[in-house]
Amino acid sequence: MPETITIVGAGMMGTALCWPLCDNGHTVRLVGTPLDEEIIHSIRKTGVHPKLERKIPATVKTFLCDELPGALRGAGVVVNGVSSFGTDWFVEMVAPRLVPGVPVIAVTKGLHVLPDGDVQPLPDFIAERLPAGMHEKVSLNAIAGPCIAHELAVRRQTCVVFTGHDLSILRSLKSVFATRYYHIRMSTDLKELEICAALKNGYALGIGIAVGMFDKSGSDGLAQMYNPQAALFAQSCLEMRLLIKALGGKEEHASWLPGAGDLYVTVYGGRTLRLGRLLGQGFSMAQALDQMAGVTLESVEIITRLAGALLVLEGRGLVQSGQFPFLQFLDGVINHDEPVAFPWDRFCLV
Amino acid sequence: MPETITIVGAGMMGTALCWPLCDNGHTVRLVGTPLDEEIIHSIRKTGVHPKLERKIPATVKTFLCDELPGALRGAGVVVNGVSSFGTDWFVEMVAPRLVPGVPVIAVTKGLHVLPDGDVQPLPDFIAERLPAGMHEKVSLNAIAGPCIAHELAVRRQTCVVFTGHDLSILRSLKSVFATRYYHIRMSTDLKELEICAALKNGYALGIGIAVGMFDKSGSDGLAQMYNPQAALFAQSCLEMRLLIKALGGKEEHASWLPGAGDLYVTVYGGRTLRLGRLLGQGFSMAQALDQMAGVTLESVEIITRLAGALLVLEGRGLVQSGQFPFLQFLDGVINHDEPVAFPWDRFCLV
Repeated sequence: MPETITIVGAGMMGTALCWPLCDNGHTVRLVGTPLDEEIIHSIRKTGVHPKLERKIPATVKTFLCDELPGALRGAGVVVNGVSSFGTDWFVEMVAPRLVPGVPVIAVTKGLHVLPDGDVQPLPDFIAERLPAGMHEKVSLNAIAGPCIAHELAVRRQTCVVFTGHDLSILRSLKSVFATRYYHIRMSTDLKELEICAALKNGYALGIGIAVGMFDKSGSDGLAQMYNPQAALFAQSCLEMRLLIKALGGKEEHASWLPGAGDLYVTVYGGRTLRLGRLLGQGFSMAQALDQMAGVTLESVEIITRLAGALLVLEGRGLVQSGQFPFLQFLDGVINHDEPVAFPWDRFCLV
Repeated sequence: MPETITIVGAGMMGTALCWPLCDNGHTVRLVGTPLDEEIIHSIRKTGVHPKLERKIPATVKTFLCDELPGALRGAGVVVNGVSSFGTDWFVEMVAPRLVPGVPVIAVTKGLHVLPDGDVQPLPDFIAERLPAGMHEKVSLNAIAGPCIAHELAVRRQTCVVFTGHDLSILRSLKSVFATRYYHIRMSTDLKELEICAALKNGYALGIGIAVGMFDKSGSDGLAQMYNPQAALFAQSCLEMRLLIKALGGKEEHASWLPGAGDLYVTVYGGRTLRLGRLLGQGFSMAQALDQMAGVTLESVEIITRLAGALLVLEGRGLVQSGQFPFLQFLDGVINHDEPVAFPWDRFCLV
């Protein structure tokens, strides 16, 4: 049954959802955040999303930030397409306007660390900040798994996971979004899937460092560096698995769509890989950030938060020192100006 | 302590081991099989291995096939660098000349299927075929994990797993081979690691098909197809895990070096990927094999054998119908001329 879907946030991933939603005959409203004004103006003028570099479906209605209230009115589903750095804005501006019985689904990755070192997925973080009395009435969900926005926008075959606490709501969301190219799996293992969805950004940065080290040194006539990348890939899977296990989740998800699958696409490009390459080429963190001015880097935030969480979890005896050498190496490079020297001897030990 | 190491088989992977072995000061003997005569002649003439396209370390001594007995005499370790298609030759020509107490380690991947559907790793297959009385006296081991020969030959950081039944022998082998760039992990989980090492070739072929489908269709202006590849990657990990579990092994190895890690490097290139691309571009199996004349394709053999094994295992109630849609799809394309149409709806279900 056709519905009205409001996508809040006109970034690449939120916008890419216009394709399956329009193909399913829904009315789609795309709302820019305060940072998306230019994008909305550009779409209104040319029909083209400037970052996706592609005309969005003609039936999509665009809204500027100050038109948000009207855009939310009557929506059957709300998509949270705001970057994790805009979560406070979402809580302030969107949360109070959510309606009982209308579910929210986020494309945003983001993990909050609780004082006891446990992690809180973004949907739970937002749920706690809903207006009084709304907590039980608005279901917050998330999309995880390997999905490059550009590819969804040309209808490439894509498999993702819809995750939340209520399977019946996940089923109804699936029926709204699923197409012959957008394949949706469902899982109520929200925490472990969001751990993978977030952590893979951190590890992709690390694999980018290995790519960058070759950019610098490649004087041996060989234009590839896959052996080191593969070892780092395996170590990433291992650390995701160990963290999930320590936090009481199903460790096998680390090799599913949001873990290994999502890491696989993330290392192919994008800003996370670019930062890693700069570090691998020998730039300091400050120099690398300088070169990437204006780009939001969720990977850096995730590494920093999780490195902190590990200390607390170690204190509680839930993880052991040395179990996460890759994450600690990344924290050292990013936050403590440590050299880009992978501790190979500590990797891939099981 | 320097030893004499005899590498039987002068293919790329066997030859690449010359670098860590020579760096450790060992005397290395490289012996060509009947198929390697040209390689040995080329090395003798120019010092260059024609497929690695690189001068091998100057201290390596080369042997032609008929010089095998002398090459094996006095060796402290024998490396089996013969392709799995040469296993009968190895059993006939090398096995009778093995010496009690001198371990063998194979770079070859290969799985044999037993009548009950269980799989037998190559070292166990060869052990059963040793001359009478030798079974307990010669230890057969294998190397698994992500290692492109060209990269080992330029001393790129590489992490592999040495696997066999006796940890003390694995330790002594490690001390012979390990360098500052060739990092060795040890595991006695021989069967599950060899399952991963073999199966990753089959799944890499399948991911190659997705790459090839884009080669053909790429008219939408987007030069990438990572979403489908990532979903196939996750499905590969899932099926490796399920097969290991069904055969009583540690399923978590599917996301370690020989599983996810090795699959990661295998999809970057080589003959397996090339066959997959041809199939994805629309060539039939017969046409694709025709274009690849002369290339041995372990991936095809592995898919065919494992598809057969699944039928037996299903009959025994150890696996369920539909648990391995990717492997069955590949068997259909390769052996039954089925169309290259991925069953997306059956993938990544957990």
